[in-house]
Amino acid sequence: MEVISNHNNGSTTKIILKNGSICNGNVNGNSHSHEKIENKLVECTNSIKPGWFSEFSALWPGEAFSLKIEKLLFQGKSDYQDVMLFESATYGKVLTLDGAIQHTENGGFPYTEMIVHLPLGSIPSPKKVLIIGGGIGFTLFEVSRYPTIETIDIVEIDDVVVDVSRKFFPYLAAGFDDPRVTLIIGDGAAFVKAAQPGYYDAIIVDSSDPIGPAKDLFERPFFEALAKALRPGGVVCTQAESIWLHMHLIKQIIANCRQVFKGSVNYAWTTVPTYPTGVIGYMLCSTEGPEVNFKNPVNSIDKDTSHVKSKGPLKFYNSDIHKAAFILPSFARDLVEF
Amino acid sequence: MEVISNHNNGSTTKIILKNGSICNGNVNGNSHSHEKIENKLVECTNSIKPGWFSEFSALWPGEAFSLKIEKLLFQGKSDYQDVMLFESATYGKVLTLDGAIQHTENGGFPYTEMIVHLPLGSIPSPKKVLIIGGGIGFTLFEVSRYPTIETIDIVEIDDVVVDVSRKFFPYLAAGFDDPRVTLIIGDGAAFVKAAQPGYYDAIIVDSSDPIGPAKDLFERPFFEALAKALRPGGVVCTQAESIWLHMHLIKQIIANCRQVFKGSVNYAWTTVPTYPTGVIGYMLCSTEGPEVNFKNPVNSIDKDTSHVKSKGPLKFYNSDIHKAAFILPSFARDLVEF
Repeated sequence: MEVISNHNNGSTTKIILKNGSICNGNVNGNSHSHEKIENKLVECTNSIKPGWFSEFSALWPGEAFSLKIEKLLFQGKSDYQDVMLFESATYGKVLTLDGAIQHTENGGFPYTEMIVHLPLGSIPSPKKVLIIGGGIGFTLFEVSRYPTIETIDIVEIDDVVVDVSRKFFPYLAAGFDDPRVTLIIGDGAAFVKAAQPGYYDAIIVDSSDPIGPAKDLFERPFFEALAKALRPGGVVCTQAESIWLHMHLIKQIIANCRQVFKGSVNYAWTTVPTYPTGVIGYMLCSTEGPEVNFKNPVNSIDKDTSHVKSKGPLKFYNSDIHKAAFILPSFARDLVEF
Repeated sequence: MEVISNHNNGSTTKIILKNGSICNGNVNGNSHSHEKIENKLVECTNSIKPGWFSEFSALWPGEAFSLKIEKLLFQGKSDYQDVMLFESATYGKVLTLDGAIQHTENGGFPYTEMIVHLPLGSIPSPKKVLIIGGGIGFTLFEVSRYPTIETIDIVEIDDVVVDVSRKFFPYLAAGFDDPRVTLIIGDGAAFVKAAQPGYYDAIIVDSSDPIGPAKDLFERPFFEALAKALRPGGVVCTQAESIWLHMHLIKQIIANCRQVFKGSVNYAWTTVPTYPTGVIGYMLCSTEGPEVNFKNPVNSIDKDTSHVKSKGPLKFYNSDIHKAAFILPSFARDLVEF
């Protein structure tokens, strides 16, 4: 893995990435200093019951999911957000950002397997892939299952997320060590805007919710930059919230995507036991060019099992679940097919 | 609606129901006394934050879902369980039994639409239907959409659930007023055991979890009684827990069903935002006789819209969601197809 950082100090050295795009920053080959993390350990405060973590948010008012904490492993404030990691009683280790659960070891895999294999399973032989966000490393872990892939660029804004995740989810960190990977610590929206037009086969936007550092990733200029960075018939998959909570936001995202992506525009969803309302959605769009039918996977990673030896089997994704992800309940179907 | 009760006093008068089966009890045409309910109002106590309801259970240790209470509407102890009903901040009215959420107005409909339309959508022209549990009335409301149905028997053990639900969910109570309906207040397992063999086209077991009064409804003798009460090629749908929490229990239920039901045995699931882990499962089984392929609905209630005028449209169920409900994630598929 090559590591590129553009915010660790005030320098503005231009770095030319191997894909030809340019970003400002400096190479920092040793950004994974875990000592500094452990010094940040403080008491867990955002719980409504002693020893429990509770997930309150303006994004899901009136409801909250709580997990029993066995051990608090990390808590600190990065340049961008509050970062917490704890061992839960029943879901393994849990990472939260600004008080929202991002990943649980025993319940987070549906989200990640689907955000990766829905787009990459829909195109033959992906070669160049970009991940925006995904500093936990799990998305990278899943992307690197594909033997056809030559280049994986991952742009995470918050190096603390990467540092904490590499320390506490070491089995996922194998993705970072893949020689095909370049990790860029920086702003995803700016990176995409500066990317070489038509370069990527697939872009995966593994973002947190649209409050905090991921806000720009739900706006139209970002979608326009994504479309420009993709080759003809290239695909994007973005995290697109819950049909139970944010139908208004989802409609707006779909309307933006319909204007920007001239191939196909689809909404898919899956179940995640440790996310609010138990589900999460995805936008799956393609640019004008070779037709992409997302509803019928052409590149079934669950059938080519060469990756299983080194990475273990897929736990959630299979070709049938892929197809079923596009089938919506009536109330959502009526709102999505407007 | 005819109302039959077998536990309101100590008498053991035998009552012959219109389906020919016999149960002990006495007719009580006035079991819906709401005055007695309002006298039971007490303070809400099982919350971990003032003004919030929290759902702790030995069935899902280490996690809890919480809802903000706008107004406590009813709290009491019936002969069988704690019953609570409150107005929530975001999901409308919420009914809980023994501290577990049974129904929310804005989030409970996937569970009920699916437990009814998965079985009834899988057989042509259902005529005689039995509901075990379902005292809330929503299951009855959905069953009564089918114009071919002539008889609906519903056996609810707890008359307080019926009374409270009829008072606070009056739009669902229309189901109870359907002239095809007989409400039996009594033990579901005993009722099914005493039912006329081969009588029902479909039985829906809309039970709470296997602790408390619904325990027997997860045991093999109950499944044997269900199979006996169904006609050849008749169908049953039972509530069958979450793949995230109770795979061991689900495997056991499936093994029992495979021994008891000689037609087909299937596991389906759906998403419910206000249930633990966000999903719930169903066992769908048929008796020996005309073949039932649950995965391809033959009686699509979403296409015949004659019921919509009086009952409103389906919010969740459609024929595609029906088919998708049988598609499982890899980890569950491997455990279910043992």
